[in-house]
Order: sequence, then structure tokens, then C-alpha cells
Amino acid sequence: MSDALVGSLLEGLPASPQPEELFTTLAALPGVRIERIVSTGQSSPDGFWYDQEWDEFVLLVAGSATLQVDGEGDRPLSPGDWVLLPARTRHRVAATAAGGPTVWLAVHAGEPGGTTGSG
Amino acid sequence: MSDALVGSLLEGLPASPQPEELFTTLAALPGVRIERIVSTGQSSPDGFWYDQEWDEFVLLVAGSATLQVDGEGDRPLSPGDWVLLPARTRHRVAATAAGGPTVWLAVHAGEPGGTTGSG
Repeated sequence: MSDALVGSLLEGLPASPQPEELFTTLAALPGVRIERIVSTGQSSPDGFWYDQEWDEFVLLVAGSATLQVDGEGDRPLSPGDWVLLPARTRHRVAATAAGGPTVWLAVHAGEPGGTTGSG
Repeated sequence: MSDALVGSLLEGLPASPQPEELFTTLAALPGVRIERIVSTGQSSPDGFWYDQEWDEFVLLVAGSATLQVDGEGDRPLSPGDWVLLPARTRHRVAATAAGGPTVWLAVHAGEPGGTTGSG
């Protein structure tokens, strides 16, 4: 039997704004990578769009953000809100809260370079 | 481009205890299934252990619970706490909060019967 691994998404959050978002891989499983992202006011550069070859599920855990999906309007996100971004769904983060950390859980499915699924 | 799908883990929660836990599949992706579970005081039957052939990542989103992993002590869980349960990690839910809904996000990786990963 393997041992369980545990943690809290709300531990170790920065007390002040950071120069970059913080990325932590929590679990790298066959075909799936689960990541915590902590934003402190960052947003995607003007005109930049994520355009990934793999599906991503994101959950806003704490803080707030505004997501833009290409061809749709701004989408404000509050804690508990989730978004499924199928591969090739162009999206960007228009804003994250300036007043404190915004915590995301991201699940990347079928990401290139990840562990290959065993089928 | 595929359309994004959205929702909130905190919407549609029952106002009173339910006879069973509520399970909702949010996303069924190649090799990965993402599920919301809502508990209203349920726990695993005495002596029952989950013993799955696949890896599971669980996040406690709201409420509280006590998880037991075989061979370890009770593990109280608060919002933001996550647990990675590798395949064959025997575990059970010893308790969930009686006072209101407990919301979990579960990520099942490599679950039999799920969509096969594309590698």
C-alpha cells in the first residue's frame, strides 16, 4: 500500500505581492498533473492567450479573478467557481485580486511531457 | 475551438441532510474524471474501506471531515486540505460535518471504465 500525501492549498501563501505567480505541482499521475497556482495581482500580458493542446480544469479556491475566453465576455470568478477549458480553448487571465492571494487548483489532462497514461 | 464549461461547487447545495451523498461528474476527460461530492453527515459504514485500483486526489472545499487511512490515525480535514490517495491506499470517511454540507472535489486518474487516455 502506498502512503497518502497531504497538504493544504491555503498554507504557505505569500504575505505580500510577488513578482511572479507561484506554481506547485501537487500530484503528477499517469496522464494528469494537479497544480496549485497562487496569483498576487498578476494577469496575462495584453494580447496574450493561452492556447493549450490539452484539457484543463481550473477551480478558484480563494481570492477572485476575471477570466477571458476568446469570443466570450469577461467571466468573474469567485471561490468555488470552476471552468473546464477543453484543448484549444483560447483563454487569458484578465485580472486577479490585488488585495491578497488568489489560489487556483488546476488539473491538466493529457499534457505533453507529462506521465503517459496507462490506458 | 471548444466552448468552456463553467459552474460553482457551492451552488445547488442541499439545505438539509440528505439520505445519501450527492455525486456529480463535472468533467470526464481522457483518463481523468472530476467529480463533486456533497456529504451531509454521511460516513463510510463501520469496517468498510475504499480500496481502489486507481489514484484519487481529493480536496475538501467546504465543511469538514475526518478521513482514515489504513495504518494511520484519523486525519481531520478543513477547507483547502487535499489528500492524494494512490491506488490501493485503503481509506474511509470516518465523519463529515453534521451542521451543513461538506463539499469535496475528487479527481480520479486511470479509473476503470473511464475514458481511455490517449497517451
